Amino acid sequence: MLPSTYENQDCSLARALEIVGERWTLLVMRDAFYGVRRFNDFSAHLDAPRSVLSARLAALVDAGLLARLPDPEHGGRQLYEVTDKGKTLWPALYTLRAWGEAYAADDREPRRMFTHACCGEPLDPTARCAACDVVPEPQEIMVIPLEAPREGTRTDPVAVGLQEPHRLLDPLPGASIRQAGQPRGN
Amino acid sequence: MLPSTYENQDCSLARALEIVGERWTLLVMRDAFYGVRRFNDFSAHLDAPRSVLSARLAALVDAGLLARLPDPEHGGRQLYEVTDKGKTLWPALYTLRAWGEAYAADDREPRRMFTHACCGEPLDPTARCAACDVVPEPQEIMVIPLEAPREGTRTDPVAVGLQEPHRLLDPLPGASIRQAGQPRGN
Repeated sequence: MLPSTYENQDCSLARALEIVGERWTLLVMRDAFYGVRRFNDFSAHLDAPRSVLSARLAALVDAGLLARLPDPEHGGRQLYEVTDKGKTLWPALYTLRAWGEAYAADDREPRRMFTHACCGEPLDPTARCAACDVVPEPQEIMVIPLEAPREGTRTDPVAVGLQEPHRLLDPLPGASIRQAGQPRGN
Repeated sequence: MLPSTYENQDCSLARALEIVGERWTLLVMRDAFYGVRRFNDFSAHLDAPRSVLSARLAALVDAGLLARLPDPEHGGRQLYEVTDKGKTLWPALYTLRAWGEAYAADDREPRRMFTHACCGEPLDPTARCAACDVVPEPQEIMVIPLEAPREGTRTDPVAVGLQEPHRLLDPLPGASIRQAGQPRGN
């Protein structure tokens, strides 16, 4: 067993990793930035076991990066929303994503681009809009698909929702549609 | 057991995390950017079990972020150096560190600052030098201690080396000094 914290590492990076360094945590936050708000939608788009997803969501709520609120469309269930503190994670998440696209994607083509909504310029690799000379807040950013869905593309509601241009943090269209027979979330 | 990859996550962030998302990996790269090059120095400064450290170093070599070369001072041992590909990770690592400093440090005071060596300006939270309007390469960056060592501060060679201003990637002064009786590295 590895220790669950880096308590003897007197370093801000270790502090950050204690909050977002667990497996799946950054991918949960990615989906929350995309506008995913319901447990079942996180579960459909991520491949994490539901118990792991549940633990990661709870830890992000404890850390103040997500907030739970009642789901107006599903009595007794909850929504997860990115808090103001959670929004501050965006540049770090985006910069790591941009590194992955540039240096870890092998021969895969980029699937999406991120643009500054007010001017349409793509973000640079450090999450900056060079045209406006700002690091836009996530709610000022559009995620734009770059290619048509190909064979083998995921068909969960989140993946389908992201096949159209979408503003970050806006609830994903279609992602709250529940099919009969789908498992209940918590 | 969690899967070791995020293979069904068609996303650049997942690709990045497959390389640097394992526990300790980003802290190994942090130390490599600080100028740590020897297994025993990584081991003294990190609290990872030596078997875990060994696996993380091997994975970073496989991924092309670190390179092994013979240690001229210790026959049969090896040094680890950050490759050009490894240097590209710097903005992502720094931005996550800056987030940790701003939002995950609780009441801890910052221990270090990072400045652009040629102008002395501190980096902004996205690893940019606002004065020069560039994202400096790591070898153009100084890490500067902000406070005198306090009680309980680590006393390993890497921690001691970082008590003086130090240029990233330059071998840490003192870090290669081996005390008699220290365990041999691999």
